[in-house]
Amino acid sequence: MDAPRSLNAGTTPTGPRLADAWYVLALGRELRARPLARMLHGQPVVLFRDRDGRPAALLDRCAHRNVPLSLGRLEGGELECAYHGWRFDSRGCATRIPSLCAAHPERSLVPSLATRERDGLVWVYATPGAEPTHEPHALAKLGSEYGEVTRVVEAEGSLQAALENALDVPHTAFLHRGLFRGAGRTNRIRAVVTRAADRVVTEYLGEPRPEGLAGRLLSPSGGLVTHHDRFLLPSIAEVEYRIGDENHVLVTAMGTPVDDARTRLFAVVRFRTRFPRALVRLVLEPVAMRIFAQDAVMLAHQAEAARRFGGEHYMSTELDLMGPQIARLLRRAELGKARVGDATPDAEFRREIELEV
Amino acid sequence: MDAPRSLNAGTTPTGPRLADAWYVLALGRELRARPLARMLHGQPVVLFRDRDGRPAALLDRCAHRNVPLSLGRLEGGELECAYHGWRFDSRGCATRIPSLCAAHPERSLVPSLATRERDGLVWVYATPGAEPTHEPHALAKLGSEYGEVTRVVEAEGSLQAALENALDVPHTAFLHRGLFRGAGRTNRIRAVVTRAADRVVTEYLGEPRPEGLAGRLLSPSGGLVTHHDRFLLPSIAEVEYRIGDENHVLVTAMGTPVDDARTRLFAVVRFRTRFPRALVRLVLEPVAMRIFAQDAVMLAHQAEAARRFGGEHYMSTELDLMGPQIARLLRRAELGKARVGDATPDAEFRREIELEV
Amino acid sequence: MDAPRSLNAGTTPTGPRLADAWYVLALGRELRARPLARMLHGQPVVLFRDRDGRPAALLDRCAHRNVPLSLGRLEGGELECAYHGWRFDSRGCATRIPSLCAAHPERSLVPSLATRERDGLVWVYATPGAEPTHEPHALAKLGSEYGEVTRVVEAEGSLQAALENALDVPHTAFLHRGLFRGAGRTNRIRAVVTRAADRVVTEYLGEPRPEGLAGRLLSPSGGLVTHHDRFLLPSIAEVEYRIGDENHVLVTAMGTPVDDARTRLFAVVRFRTRFPRALVRLVLEPVAMRIFAQDAVMLAHQAEAARRFGGEHYMSTELDLMGPQIARLLRRAELGKARVGDATPDAEFRREIELEV
Repeated sequence: MDAPRSLNAGTTPTGPRLADAWYVLALGRELRARPLARMLHGQPVVLFRDRDGRPAALLDRCAHRNVPLSLGRLEGGELECAYHGWRFDSRGCATRIPSLCAAHPERSLVPSLATRERDGLVWVYATPGAEPTHEPHALAKLGSEYGEVTRVVEAEGSLQAALENALDVPHTAFLHRGLFRGAGRTNRIRAVVTRAADRVVTEYLGEPRPEGLAGRLLSPSGGLVTHHDRFLLPSIAEVEYRIGDENHVLVTAMGTPVDDARTRLFAVVRFRTRFPRALVRLVLEPVAMRIFAQDAVMLAHQAEAARRFGGEHYMSTELDLMGPQIARLLRRAELGKARVGDATPDAEFRREIELEV
Repeated sequence: MDAPRSLNAGTTPTGPRLADAWYVLALGRELRARPLARMLHGQPVVLFRDRDGRPAALLDRCAHRNVPLSLGRLEGGELECAYHGWRFDSRGCATRIPSLCAAHPERSLVPSLATRERDGLVWVYATPGAEPTHEPHALAKLGSEYGEVTRVVEAEGSLQAALENALDVPHTAFLHRGLFRGAGRTNRIRAVVTRAADRVVTEYLGEPRPEGLAGRLLSPSGGLVTHHDRFLLPSIAEVEYRIGDENHVLVTAMGTPVDDARTRLFAVVRFRTRFPRALVRLVLEPVAMRIFAQDAVMLAHQAEAARRFGGEHYMSTELDLMGPQIARLLRRAELGKARVGDATPDAEFRREIELEV
Repeated sequence: MDAPRSLNAGTTPTGPRLADAWYVLALGRELRARPLARMLHGQPVVLFRDRDGRPAALLDRCAHRNVPLSLGRLEGGELECAYHGWRFDSRGCATRIPSLCAAHPERSLVPSLATRERDGLVWVYATPGAEPTHEPHALAKLGSEYGEVTRVVEAEGSLQAALENALDVPHTAFLHRGLFRGAGRTNRIRAVVTRAADRVVTEYLGEPRPEGLAGRLLSPSGGLVTHHDRFLLPSIAEVEYRIGDENHVLVTAMGTPVDDARTRLFAVVRFRTRFPRALVRLVLEPVAMRIFAQDAVMLAHQAEAARRFGGEHYMSTELDLMGPQIARLLRRAELGKARVGDATPDAEFRREIELEV
């Protein structure tokens, strides 16, 4: 058992701030006729499509009198402030100032954030005004035989707590008992953790088909299970199951720090089973949402405890395979010692444990 | 275009504190049988009428155990605390302490604020215990042929933002489009700003009769328009229209800083038109209240942005004739460089611009 | 009249923190099948009964991921966290960590607080992990002929304000006029204050049977009145009346600082009168609850004033017999100059005043 670890004891914890991170702020289909107000690290951001249909992101504050631009309307791919009618393009430059006879400058008045639209997701670069040093994460390419469901959920919890929760196995057998694991007898399995400069991966060996409703639905006949959990900087949690040759499920959850105590997860679930996609979706979605609702209650209480006690005070055991690793990677990234997309293996690191699930 | 101006960037903005300012805290008719609780600069103040019917104002905190005196009742022009029944006169001296056999002192135990009742308004001097250095603003004398309406409205916005809003012309053609201006074609007019030690005045030249519902009702037949907007220390916004010989409207709005993010406006509207007063009132009042409601939404969002972004970050153009001048006067008054009531002209200052409305 | 006294002026007042104090956190009968969440000095505490039925108290935060333990359930006198299922005994030691194959340590992971169950009350020692230096207050032993009622009430007010209110006589004749005192003519009586190292006692001499509904019910025929009010460190307020030989009422109110602005009072009322107990209870309880409701309103406003004005600013007269004494004792206890249970008389102190009630 590791020594107790006190994170920011005595102060309200501040989530990590990665200057060069991409976060998903919206689904592509959410950007329509009206500007969309979102939050990133507690700062309001407004999203809209420019003249060419490309996503644009500005700090959500008019340069003139600071009214949120998201209150206004879109006019030909430009954003018009509701107060005095100033219009801004995707770079944050004023294109029109009503009543003004004098000239107005060409330079950007409202800080803009770089955007990318990919895989149906709108990514925004965390630092206003900065040129991205890399491209956002691309989802793994899977064939057309895969079903796909995208869901957006929000939890009152820090980014780190939400990501740890998404990749923590032991709580699934307890908190989600009967839904996901823990319905039948306990099995002793092995877990092997390896890591690279920007990621950490846990492989579970000897795992039987998951017990509980979800497992029985995915693979009624059982089969050899391959299970990988991955965390990739800056905020991607991936859970992958292969059961036999037939069944493959890949969940990619992209976390967005709304603020230090609120996280939005954009989850893309892709699956291939021998059942019709519509049926799988119909059966699994309520189970997944129930699981998430149980997690959200725990995350909210965890965040509330940090507020009440003036900080976090975590103790980890060897079962906490991913949480401390996620914390380490985020800390390194914040200090510039780890870079998104640098998959150089950390050959010296390998951890293997046994656990009962 | 002026350089971007950051006010208190990084901190929650604090409104100006003028030690020697008079603010309206109530209408005279609001002071009746029960004490009235109000707020000034975030401090609770209790108002009541003394034995002679004169308004009195005390800090709303019993000297004994700090319960608000406004919870109590009036007894012969004295205020009786609801907890132990201590009674205070208009100077804040205890006149009775139930159960006490020993003598009690004559000196003021609760800080009192100077008051004046004038034009149906109850003015309170901002500094408890201080002797006023001047008298509060007197409304201009107008003949008995004028109609008069007094309205009290409150906005979630700083005093400065609310006063700038009251005297800002460009937003009326955009935000209030169709109600006040901006219904028809655009006109290019001139504006001339002059100032004195305690005030700033903008005169609009070449302005046609205002478009929109309000303008058409005031003066159906058009006519030469004279339009002055004035700001007077500490918090008076005045808008004056003369259209032809017949029509004269004078709006005097007295701002009161409830706290740093909430402003109450006591507006006295006086008018002379060729229509019956009751008809003008019936038609104009809903329009005016609709206009104020639109402004209040913008002010609330402006204040919220200051909280979220940790301060204001305003950029002004030459169209912002009054806002920066109001800010300058308030700053000078706070530093003791400008005095209420000192109308010495600032002969070196004159600004003239063209604008389209 | 004493000089005005400013407590913590300019800051939000912090209640006294006594390291070695016992506070009542629950009634014994409240500890049943589910863990009980309580607050002490703003810190969450969870209460439950251990394997032997003894009350246990832990900081309400799981050592692992900080979820409140009170969300979980009791399993054989141990507390099971709702998130990962860790179980803790009454010392805060982990007894079971699901999924873990490795050993886990025996030492306390969650800070525990000493408890005592006595007189139907569950007392908790204020300092987690500390060995008590003394035992909690024991209620005076009274015969089986006494009726007893226990009531728990909560007020939005500091511990000191709530205790002063409980032992303040003058407000009863004003705020509770007609319920408790003040219904008839005024009487001039004497009060004598004496004190010991850990307490202060006021005896009222020459007091007639209390006027008001309560007095008339307690003793319809009048009789010689003996009335003592006592404050004992750390937070006990006691009011004792004897009227004639027949009637004896002893109210012991134990205050618990929920946080700096919220106090819970556990009041044990014991009485002997010539009326049947059930009747006395039936008649007096609504009167007592009405009196407390009036007090709670004042306490809430008093606390709100401290927040709004940034601190307390109290002025006391000679009528304030107990409040300043309570403040002095709490201050001395906080500094280690007064100890709970040290009844050494303070022979040099004696104060006598006259008052009208």
